[in-house]
Amino acid sequence: MSKLAEPGALRSPRRDLTGAPFLAAARGARPARTPVWFMRQAGRSLPEYRAVRQGTSMMRACFTPELVCEVTLQPVRRHGVDAAILFSDIVVPLYAAGVGVDIVAGTGPVVASPVRGAADVAALPALEPDAVAPIAEAIRLVIAELGSGPGGIPLIGFAGAPFTLASYLIEGGPSRNHERTKALMYAEPDTWHALLAHLAATTATFLRAQVAAGVDAVQLFDSWAGALSERDYREFVLPHSTAVLAALAESGLPRIHFGVGTGELLGAMAEAGADVVGVDWRVPLDEAALRIGPGRAVQGNLDPAALFAGSEVVATQARRIVAQGRAAGGHVFNLGHGVLPETDPDVLTRLVELVHSL
Amino acid sequence: MSKLAEPGALRSPRRDLTGAPFLAAARGARPARTPVWFMRQAGRSLPEYRAVRQGTSMMRACFTPELVCEVTLQPVRRHGVDAAILFSDIVVPLYAAGVGVDIVAGTGPVVASPVRGAADVAALPALEPDAVAPIAEAIRLVIAELGSGPGGIPLIGFAGAPFTLASYLIEGGPSRNHERTKALMYAEPDTWHALLAHLAATTATFLRAQVAAGVDAVQLFDSWAGALSERDYREFVLPHSTAVLAALAESGLPRIHFGVGTGELLGAMAEAGADVVGVDWRVPLDEAALRIGPGRAVQGNLDPAALFAGSEVVATQARRIVAQGRAAGGHVFNLGHGVLPETDPDVLTRLVELVHSL
Repeated sequence: MSKLAEPGALRSPRRDLTGAPFLAAARGARPARTPVWFMRQAGRSLPEYRAVRQGTSMMRACFTPELVCEVTLQPVRRHGVDAAILFSDIVVPLYAAGVGVDIVAGTGPVVASPVRGAADVAALPALEPDAVAPIAEAIRLVIAELGSGPGGIPLIGFAGAPFTLASYLIEGGPSRNHERTKALMYAEPDTWHALLAHLAATTATFLRAQVAAGVDAVQLFDSWAGALSERDYREFVLPHSTAVLAALAESGLPRIHFGVGTGELLGAMAEAGADVVGVDWRVPLDEAALRIGPGRAVQGNLDPAALFAGSEVVATQARRIVAQGRAAGGHVFNLGHGVLPETDPDVLTRLVELVHSL
Repeated sequence: MSKLAEPGALRSPRRDLTGAPFLAAARGARPARTPVWFMRQAGRSLPEYRAVRQGTSMMRACFTPELVCEVTLQPVRRHGVDAAILFSDIVVPLYAAGVGVDIVAGTGPVVASPVRGAADVAALPALEPDAVAPIAEAIRLVIAELGSGPGGIPLIGFAGAPFTLASYLIEGGPSRNHERTKALMYAEPDTWHALLAHLAATTATFLRAQVAAGVDAVQLFDSWAGALSERDYREFVLPHSTAVLAALAESGLPRIHFGVGTGELLGAMAEAGADVVGVDWRVPLDEAALRIGPGRAVQGNLDPAALFAGSEVVATQARRIVAQGRAAGGHVFNLGHGVLPETDPDVLTRLVELVHSL
């Protein structure tokens, strides 16, 4: 655990973002306008993204500071969102640590030698902060562009949570049923916990490096946690996600925790130490607020598929979500999952205007 | 609606299956042994299935009575399960009605001309019972082999529910995000309801043909319903699934209703008219029983991925599930989703023995 708690590592001069609606809502206040950003706002839905990515592999893009900076800023310029999110990928810290992993277009992450037992876990390389120096440099470039004071835009750092990283490592790539992952989890709990502790340390190191470089909040994505029952989540995952979020506590920055299909897990994911809990579209925000308990904010809830249904539908749903979000201790407007690649960017721009007007 | 309620169509002489544990549990009793069957028990996990399917396309197999009979019986012979389930595919009634759809290996159903608007819906062909005569013939062959009296094994008929069929028709194949489906649902509710009413009639016709041919229970699979919020499910789906199940009420046969990731929908899916509600592994059966309400049985709950974790894990989980199932009005042991193709069939056989011994 010592790696998770190097005191002082998180201290760095921060921009003054007093009054930024995103930070206020994430801390449980109700700012004058509901803040809005979109998961995957920096990505394939934007033609300017597709243009700058052309000819550059995903992994190379993630380690090229100027490109990360440009892509991170694109949706801020275009949509006027209330937060930027670092352009990165969930396997970036694994790649940086030296794990053989690549992003294959049309497939997703592919791991050269999947983790199948205790020896594989023991052989996993640790992440040294220096290995993510290009990401830290990207963060410094972004922040210089995002301004400070009134009108300054916060930057959200992010990382994948231990369970989701474990699934990629064990399955060797994206998996629909996570059968190898669950088999290891159930059959070899000691190996499992060693793996998740390693990944928690990796994730904490990565997020602390982002904090040290100047991000204003962090989001821990547990994309696949919804594949687990609450019982299994609490036994096999919660301690490790808790360790990651605890390692960021001293930063004082808002910590967002998100997964998809996690209606049954919202309470547990809040207990992990989240200041903001992400909610997909299956559970309305007022009900989510009950499950999450008092003193935490909610984020999300608009079905990304609804963005294909025309402006009237989008407006009706956005109004309902803003109204239901009032039941929570803070509401950050977002989608219930990432922007789908075919989304019309103009729909997103108009949605930001609408949410700001409500 | 007249198509859903031709009186007398369901009357046919039935086998005497008094005392069959599956039928008793499905009707809310607690038979001496907990009945067990597995979704997708007839399929790729069995080498004898792969042998007989070799060289025959999925759709051709589904319309070849002798082959359907053989494949349906294989898991009964091998595992000693308490029910057979008709070997078929969710798009069979669409294909039989004349919709251009095929099953492409490695992809799933592919629809030649996806449904994108009101004119496409109006042009959809109705299903005539004669078009599924080969399936009715297969059912008669299966039943002759399943015996009657003590030791006779019930046969479960099945069909895909209107929402899941609609998603295949609209997306043109399997879809992760169902964005076109939801866009049509939200943006053109009249077209949507016309489509789902058409598909409810198709499904009812298909299931009534199965009942007339002699199945002893039916399962309505709404594979993708878990992609919806409860609010949307109730508005856009529930009336149509209710119409299907109502069309089978006069048969007096148990009606099972199942979907994946439907923790939020269990109450609504019960209200649709299910005698048995299928539950995946995310919600324990005692909690599911509360959501479903009294007077209905539950089915399912073992994570298919747990079958890869060794016999001790399987036994521990099976014992827990049988114990939690006692909270419900009847419990049919099953997986929380279909058997995964890589599953070791011996694990299933031993699981049947174990559940019977508890």
